[in-house]
Amino acid sequence: MKRAGIINVTGYVGAELARLLWRHPEVRLTSVTGRSGAGKPLAEVFPHLAPLGLTIGEELNSVDVVFSALPHGASAQAVAPLIEAGLPVIDHSADFRLRDVDDYESWYGRKHPAPHLLPDAVYGMPELHRDEVAKAQVVAVPGCYPSSAIPALAPALRAGLIEHDVIIDSKSGVSGAGRTLDLKRHYSEANESVLAYGLEGHFHLAEITQELSRLCEAPAPRITFIPHLVPMTRGILSTCYAPLAPGRVSPGNRARSEVREIYSEFYRNEPFIRVVDSPPQTKQAWGSNYCLLYPTVDLRAGRLVVVSCLDNLVKGAAGQAIQDMNLMLGFPETAGLEDLAVYP
Amino acid sequence: MKRAGIINVTGYVGAELARLLWRHPEVRLTSVTGRSGAGKPLAEVFPHLAPLGLTIGEELNSVDVVFSALPHGASAQAVAPLIEAGLPVIDHSADFRLRDVDDYESWYGRKHPAPHLLPDAVYGMPELHRDEVAKAQVVAVPGCYPSSAIPALAPALRAGLIEHDVIIDSKSGVSGAGRTLDLKRHYSEANESVLAYGLEGHFHLAEITQELSRLCEAPAPRITFIPHLVPMTRGILSTCYAPLAPGRVSPGNRARSEVREIYSEFYRNEPFIRVVDSPPQTKQAWGSNYCLLYPTVDLRAGRLVVVSCLDNLVKGAAGQAIQDMNLMLGFPETAGLEDLAVYP
Amino acid sequence: MKRAGIINVTGYVGAELARLLWRHPEVRLTSVTGRSGAGKPLAEVFPHLAPLGLTIGEELNSVDVVFSALPHGASAQAVAPLIEAGLPVIDHSADFRLRDVDDYESWYGRKHPAPHLLPDAVYGMPELHRDEVAKAQVVAVPGCYPSSAIPALAPALRAGLIEHDVIIDSKSGVSGAGRTLDLKRHYSEANESVLAYGLEGHFHLAEITQELSRLCEAPAPRITFIPHLVPMTRGILSTCYAPLAPGRVSPGNRARSEVREIYSEFYRNEPFIRVVDSPPQTKQAWGSNYCLLYPTVDLRAGRLVVVSCLDNLVKGAAGQAIQDMNLMLGFPETAGLEDLAVYP
Amino acid sequence: MKRAGIINVTGYVGAELARLLWRHPEVRLTSVTGRSGAGKPLAEVFPHLAPLGLTIGEELNSVDVVFSALPHGASAQAVAPLIEAGLPVIDHSADFRLRDVDDYESWYGRKHPAPHLLPDAVYGMPELHRDEVAKAQVVAVPGCYPSSAIPALAPALRAGLIEHDVIIDSKSGVSGAGRTLDLKRHYSEANESVLAYGLEGHFHLAEITQELSRLCEAPAPRITFIPHLVPMTRGILSTCYAPLAPGRVSPGNRARSEVREIYSEFYRNEPFIRVVDSPPQTKQAWGSNYCLLYPTVDLRAGRLVVVSCLDNLVKGAAGQAIQDMNLMLGFPETAGLEDLAVYP
Repeated sequence: MKRAGIINVTGYVGAELARLLWRHPEVRLTSVTGRSGAGKPLAEVFPHLAPLGLTIGEELNSVDVVFSALPHGASAQAVAPLIEAGLPVIDHSADFRLRDVDDYESWYGRKHPAPHLLPDAVYGMPELHRDEVAKAQVVAVPGCYPSSAIPALAPALRAGLIEHDVIIDSKSGVSGAGRTLDLKRHYSEANESVLAYGLEGHFHLAEITQELSRLCEAPAPRITFIPHLVPMTRGILSTCYAPLAPGRVSPGNRARSEVREIYSEFYRNEPFIRVVDSPPQTKQAWGSNYCLLYPTVDLRAGRLVVVSCLDNLVKGAAGQAIQDMNLMLGFPETAGLEDLAVYP
Repeated sequence: MKRAGIINVTGYVGAELARLLWRHPEVRLTSVTGRSGAGKPLAEVFPHLAPLGLTIGEELNSVDVVFSALPHGASAQAVAPLIEAGLPVIDHSADFRLRDVDDYESWYGRKHPAPHLLPDAVYGMPELHRDEVAKAQVVAVPGCYPSSAIPALAPALRAGLIEHDVIIDSKSGVSGAGRTLDLKRHYSEANESVLAYGLEGHFHLAEITQELSRLCEAPAPRITFIPHLVPMTRGILSTCYAPLAPGRVSPGNRARSEVREIYSEFYRNEPFIRVVDSPPQTKQAWGSNYCLLYPTVDLRAGRLVVVSCLDNLVKGAAGQAIQDMNLMLGFPETAGLEDLAVYP
Repeated sequence: MKRAGIINVTGYVGAELARLLWRHPEVRLTSVTGRSGAGKPLAEVFPHLAPLGLTIGEELNSVDVVFSALPHGASAQAVAPLIEAGLPVIDHSADFRLRDVDDYESWYGRKHPAPHLLPDAVYGMPELHRDEVAKAQVVAVPGCYPSSAIPALAPALRAGLIEHDVIIDSKSGVSGAGRTLDLKRHYSEANESVLAYGLEGHFHLAEITQELSRLCEAPAPRITFIPHLVPMTRGILSTCYAPLAPGRVSPGNRARSEVREIYSEFYRNEPFIRVVDSPPQTKQAWGSNYCLLYPTVDLRAGRLVVVSCLDNLVKGAAGQAIQDMNLMLGFPETAGLEDLAVYP
Repeated sequence: MKRAGIINVTGYVGAELARLLWRHPEVRLTSVTGRSGAGKPLAEVFPHLAPLGLTIGEELNSVDVVFSALPHGASAQAVAPLIEAGLPVIDHSADFRLRDVDDYESWYGRKHPAPHLLPDAVYGMPELHRDEVAKAQVVAVPGCYPSSAIPALAPALRAGLIEHDVIIDSKSGVSGAGRTLDLKRHYSEANESVLAYGLEGHFHLAEITQELSRLCEAPAPRITFIPHLVPMTRGILSTCYAPLAPGRVSPGNRARSEVREIYSEFYRNEPFIRVVDSPPQTKQAWGSNYCLLYPTVDLRAGRLVVVSCLDNLVKGAAGQAIQDMNLMLGFPETAGLEDLAVYP
């Protein structure tokens, strides 16, 4: 058994990593730290994790693989020495997601804390970068929105099916915003209400643009991405829109099955992406590592429409991180991720 | 006091009409019918309406104005004799919304039950058709989605601000789907989940297209409209996207204030449309007749983005109906609609 | 028109007072203060209150009646000078609810800030103290839980129907806990979960005990009161249990109708208490000033069971406060409180 | 690997059995039937179960163990021939829960379909009947409410800690009421509302009374049980109240730790019952087979108060059924039930 450690276990991503590692056949969670709560039993912060019997430490003990669930800026700083010591690191912050330091610095408004580590970091979406992840020492887990949007558009861009003019309208449950107190996520404010936010430009647009641009020829896609907060705890549904490129699909209803076929083919061997036959709902992924995709065509307007669903804390965060770890450490890719969704 | 009647009070729109009329200074609800429940006290079906002291009848008694909350097809049939008898009729079905009989028949897949009544019916959105509503005998209350989407796009189309290429991504609470039992609205299925539906083309696209086309020159806008079900009882938030027409707004940040100004000007005297300074949430309209609009610009992609919020049962149905009635009967337009939102 | 002021309008009770006063025919809200936010437009803190056009001040302007929505301790201190200046004051804190200073000091763990004002303060539950409220200068609005529990038990205790051994199991929406940020009311923590709290003794037990004791002969009832947090924004449902006193009702099913009769008789002329024929749900009171009571008998166990529902922010707070104000200022008791529930 | 079959997989209990068996190390689900949907892929009814690759049949294929998720009456009839053929049967209906046929017939208002099978059936609560379950061929899975209430009271009754006068106030999520359409569980009706029901006597009282009576000497406890519907999908929280028997615990605060000690001792070796140190919330059990108990004392009133939480579809149904199966087939009791709660 390999020993895993989690830096900053006291947020939702950290807790979800701990939950999933509990069932992992090859890895045992042996050390956890927390920005608050050092010295406390983990069960005091998260009673559902009581069976792990862990205490929150100030520093990680000796482990074989590290997950960081720190926010950007803090994370690169914390893991830099571990990386230099040769440990495999899977990072949930934005610090290792963007290839281009300038891109990072203009989006995040700060100097990158460890730019020398960027060239070797890999964007941890196995469906696009499986081989690099398998060889990487440092993997950046994609953001929750990109995890739902990029797979929804990748096959279409790769196939030249659409014009480079994309709208991503995402609806997220509230846990995506984390455990930090904030009026927008105060129960009485968030409940029974929908809200658009990030209208001036949300961080995740940077990585969506980076990854989608790598899938197609120039020009880079012109992308509008608007996230919404929806009154539920978990789940993201992204609805993605783009004009069909002329002449790529047959006219009329056949367009729909042709598009479906392109997607099914693209994801034929993927264990966690399911191209489905009827519009999915987020709850069908609740607690599981699946991403459900439903591509179709608006025949009147000549537009591709793709609906994508996942659990933001699993395939959108901790589950994808474990999938990355499995690749990095040579375990079966699905190890520890076999759970079906908890439905209803 | 004028006497009002409601045909089919036993659904959510009927009940909401009854609730709002209870506070109307000039009109008294004196007669209600129901497809089920004739003979029962209204309080048995809707306990919150007990103070009205009404019994559900089979037929309307003598009244001065009629609201119909029957579904399409049934409604035109039921109100045709009342119209012929000269009564003012405000209809919640789709039967009088579309000018073009063929349009109706192809969208709804049935012969129109009373095509001779169409020429005189008015699409009851006061912000676009105030004068016609005031003179009409038959008013078609707009659908809930069009009530949120059309006002979001009207100023931009009228001003030539955008290209005729529009995406409307709407998120609706579950009450919009009515009181009829259905697995999709069964609590355990709908709760904690988001869902896209109507992906083959939702009925409301017909009226959205009709009304938006009247606001601009040819070509008619190419519109993709995708509704979503969100786990809350009331509220619609529509996010509307369209490319800016070249050269109509200044480059950079000034574009945002110019767009805001066009919207504010367009709705300057509207009692129920508020152009707001920060992104609204649906709950800010809960129980009230307000529609909140937040227009902005995605500067990177050169796109107009407008967020629109309302309560689907009030401004999206019963409240707008009463606003229409006020115009038709010569009352102050806001009579009976003064309530602020119930927040939180 | 009388002018009203609200001290601390920036919490949910303050905002609800503002919403209700907006429709009051005899009173106009002219001045509001806030612990945070002085100088800001009220619309910035609560967009749904924009139509009031008010700005949050540091101090109240000259008004004819004052509502305080400050927490206990702070409230008595703030209103003492206003009381001394002769203004009618309606207070939402616990500072004027308990007759007995020692009781206050042992429950709240602090010296009472103005004990000399206690003898003239009245517990503002019109159903029990209508005449005193009408004559009072200082009225203490009952807590939200007591507002639901006391009316559920008053008729039974007054009639000697039950033994003095009472259990009150209350289920409350989250808004009752206010707008202050707290992990327990963070959306992702509170959503989809039920929780018992206050198990060591909740403040509201003090006023429940005080009021129920005054309704019956010694010994004072032995009361267990356990509040629960339920994932909804508004509403309290209290289920109250007590053994039937021997011989007071007939055996068998007749007991139920006899009990119903006692309750109906007790509340015959009450405008806001409805004794209902089938078990109510909290939503039937949403946004309204009604309290719905359903008394019945567990025939197997010989126990009275009473279910009580209300909206914690209306009949459980701001609505009851306005009902008190109406009595104090000589307006019709229902003025400004005519709204039916917003359902569903 | 043993082969398991599920009769009536198309409800929530059936689906939950399928989800849990998917991870079972010793048993493979090979055959499922459905009252509706025979011939359809299981994935069409429950998309989250797609990975099982099963088709709904009319009849079970050859299996080694059978779960029935049919309603009472239908279930005994359906499983009687399987029992006679010697198959181990785990039944979710009420048909085998009550020892006394008369009791069954008076509560359920029908003749028992197979009274000759009752004497050998075992009430499948391992914490009370582990040895009988292990030897049984027919096990009745307890109802969801009894699964939460009985463990909350068993230690106190066994220890003579309380008088035989018990109130159980239960709050349940909506999935407990199943997948059958019903206005009470229609989203817009159930959402944002709490409701008491079963006030004339809920079925589950019969089994609660049977089991609690077996734990103590006469007289049988006088039990009032009132279930409530709470707006969430999963979870039951039961708050249980009983007067302390005189002299059994020390006065003052020590009573609380003594009571805690009695409970901890009673459940010392139970894998799925956790006596916790702070009031639990239902979500801490979401998706898992744990039951969390928090016993305390209302010192003012001299009453034991016990809060009990579980997931109604897991420990309250399918999880407990698998726990029973593990005992019956000689597997480790926790096999397939290792998942932690999905939180938040």
